[in-house]
Amino acid sequence: MADWQKIDGGITAPKGFKAAGIAAGLKSSGMPDLALILSETEAIAAGVFTTTQVRAACVDYCRQRLQAKASARAILCNAGQANAATGEQGWQDALKSAELLGTELNISPQAILLASTGVIGQRIKMDALAKGIPSLVAAASTDGGKDAAKAIITTDLVTKSIALETIIDDRPVRIGGIAKGSGMIHPNMATMLSFITCDAAVATHLWQDMLKRAVDKSFNQITVDGDTSTNDSVIALANGQSRTSAITEMGKNAQKLEAMLTAVCQYLAKAIARDGEGATCLIEVQVSGAPDNKAASTVAKTIAGSSLVKSAIFGRDPNWGRIAAAAGRAGVKFSQDELQIKLGDFILMENGQPLEFDRQAASNYLKQAAAGAYLQEDTVLISVCIGNGSGTSTAWGCDLTYKYVEINAEYTT
Amino acid sequence: MADWQKIDGGITAPKGFKAAGIAAGLKSSGMPDLALILSETEAIAAGVFTTTQVRAACVDYCRQRLQAKASARAILCNAGQANAATGEQGWQDALKSAELLGTELNISPQAILLASTGVIGQRIKMDALAKGIPSLVAAASTDGGKDAAKAIITTDLVTKSIALETIIDDRPVRIGGIAKGSGMIHPNMATMLSFITCDAAVATHLWQDMLKRAVDKSFNQITVDGDTSTNDSVIALANGQSRTSAITEMGKNAQKLEAMLTAVCQYLAKAIARDGEGATCLIEVQVSGAPDNKAASTVAKTIAGSSLVKSAIFGRDPNWGRIAAAAGRAGVKFSQDELQIKLGDFILMENGQPLEFDRQAASNYLKQAAAGAYLQEDTVLISVCIGNGSGTSTAWGCDLTYKYVEINAEYTT
Repeated sequence: MADWQKIDGGITAPKGFKAAGIAAGLKSSGMPDLALILSETEAIAAGVFTTTQVRAACVDYCRQRLQAKASARAILCNAGQANAATGEQGWQDALKSAELLGTELNISPQAILLASTGVIGQRIKMDALAKGIPSLVAAASTDGGKDAAKAIITTDLVTKSIALETIIDDRPVRIGGIAKGSGMIHPNMATMLSFITCDAAVATHLWQDMLKRAVDKSFNQITVDGDTSTNDSVIALANGQSRTSAITEMGKNAQKLEAMLTAVCQYLAKAIARDGEGATCLIEVQVSGAPDNKAASTVAKTIAGSSLVKSAIFGRDPNWGRIAAAAGRAGVKFSQDELQIKLGDFILMENGQPLEFDRQAASNYLKQAAAGAYLQEDTVLISVCIGNGSGTSTAWGCDLTYKYVEINAEYTT
Repeated sequence: MADWQKIDGGITAPKGFKAAGIAAGLKSSGMPDLALILSETEAIAAGVFTTTQVRAACVDYCRQRLQAKASARAILCNAGQANAATGEQGWQDALKSAELLGTELNISPQAILLASTGVIGQRIKMDALAKGIPSLVAAASTDGGKDAAKAIITTDLVTKSIALETIIDDRPVRIGGIAKGSGMIHPNMATMLSFITCDAAVATHLWQDMLKRAVDKSFNQITVDGDTSTNDSVIALANGQSRTSAITEMGKNAQKLEAMLTAVCQYLAKAIARDGEGATCLIEVQVSGAPDNKAASTVAKTIAGSSLVKSAIFGRDPNWGRIAAAAGRAGVKFSQDELQIKLGDFILMENGQPLEFDRQAASNYLKQAAAGAYLQEDTVLISVCIGNGSGTSTAWGCDLTYKYVEINAEYTT
């Protein structure tokens, strides 16, 4: 049983956080494109960033800042231009963005973290940004979470926002989060971004470790098209304003906080996979029996990322051979004589032997589960057991549709 | 300059080989589905097979046979049923197939190699196979290469066949090859298969080493959808009937033979990528400046396999940001300040800085090259340099189209 409840408010649900989202003219569509998350007091800050060799300036900037000091007052995010692969000029633009916001907020630019999303190779429209910042700061409020959630999206069809509350030391402790992303990478709108706020008091190293583990069980387990972004960033702030005692080591309270943090990350990660470009349903792949969790994760992500499996699910076709083939090529050693494959409750293969099954009923399961997944009430569930090991993992993905090709072929730079 | 010339005849061009392809009723379509390649005398045999954990019975069978003795008289290939993930029964069916053909040819079943392609999880239709074998053997002839090329395909739109001739010891030496595959894996028709015949006399270990290296530079460098097959097999027979002196160590003649073998493999590999499911054009990705060839290969294959790059090429969109992003996530360390990206002759990024370029002209290049690629006269060329290293590699792929999704979603098991 979950030890927390859902509440309203998104990233401004935790105490001491304000947020804003405005249209500053960065997107040619005129949609909101500039977001601010502001902590009233200094918050400890943890970040997990893309591991790719081609990175946006903001990713290098945040890494450097957090290495120097793991705390922050504000996060500034622009949508429309990714500021990735923009060379030295992109780096200068990042520094200038922090300076502009620091001046307006009257705080050190060092206390500001940055994120960008949009077209790779395009610089931020700095004039529009400079003009927008005073309005952005003026708009910051304790119920601005929704506006910020809107201002960070690009090709997303829906905003992704959540807030959870638990009790620590008899006081409510809250975590809020927003995310954007319609794929691990967007067409030209490269990026998966998530910002998380928390009002617990927690030691810096512990917060970073918790975030890393939570990301490994959530954002790192989703795939839409296998393309990693140049801008992927997850930043989590914790400001201690719940006034609970500081969590400085692993223990009951730390576990409670980490479980809630993980739940927030998983909610947002699944929301991204469900909103995958062109997708009609969320696919959940559960792998068990692996030598360890890492091996299970590799198999789960390979199945969730297989174009053939994804196409079959789009066709509502219980084509288990493709699932077996994807598991086999994942790079994890196992005996095919121990392979078990299930689709929902239908066992399709057992001990490496194909079973007779009701193909029509299995196809009907796919149709129903996919329809339910569309309504966010269900998922298409693929379960694979590869042996007797204790390793387990869950990955999430979406189906591959005509719409995905359309979005990515017909968008012209 | 190539040291050989193209000749007619495919796999029956080399001396001492016969082949046949017939419709034995394995495919419900009634198309040819059973192929035989027969060497008049014992030929040394080399094989390279899928590395996946979920393998077809014929793959395990060939591995075992070739480990015991690296020679063969015949290859039997059925299309329609992959005989993969068919458990113990699939293994018995493989043994029985070899036994049936051995009896008909009056040779040991040990001298027969097997390959299957078709729906994963389906057993070979053994009754049809048994009935077909006498006609198959009767049909074998020295100009049966074309028939065999037809009988091994499944969703392929065209057959893939080639023969080359060079001079060794003043005598003609020939290599012929056929292949099937419309992707690394087919929808339900899992498989990339290639069979190669050669009339040179060459030492067993040398032939196996040559084949391995040739496959690494050809079949292992193509990707259609990133899904590795359960049945992938390349088998090469060399029977010595050119009556040239035996090639027993690396030297001028061995290099000549290996170069020609590599050319045969690359021709067939590119033919497969060009015939990728739903593809409209062949994409060639050349990577240079890597620390070593392996690193270059990894980057080249990641770019060629990126759904976003493939979609952009389908849209004839010079969207170099996606190429940079794919290079960055390949898992190879490089400095983004040294990245150069070219599309045809257009330099789009230099020293990690985006360059101004004529977008319309670059899009026109894509349109022309893709049209040429369709006619097998051209390819869409992407060149990426990631640093100052000496590592280079070329990979081949195809664009991602609506048709790919249609083929893979609308095929119902």
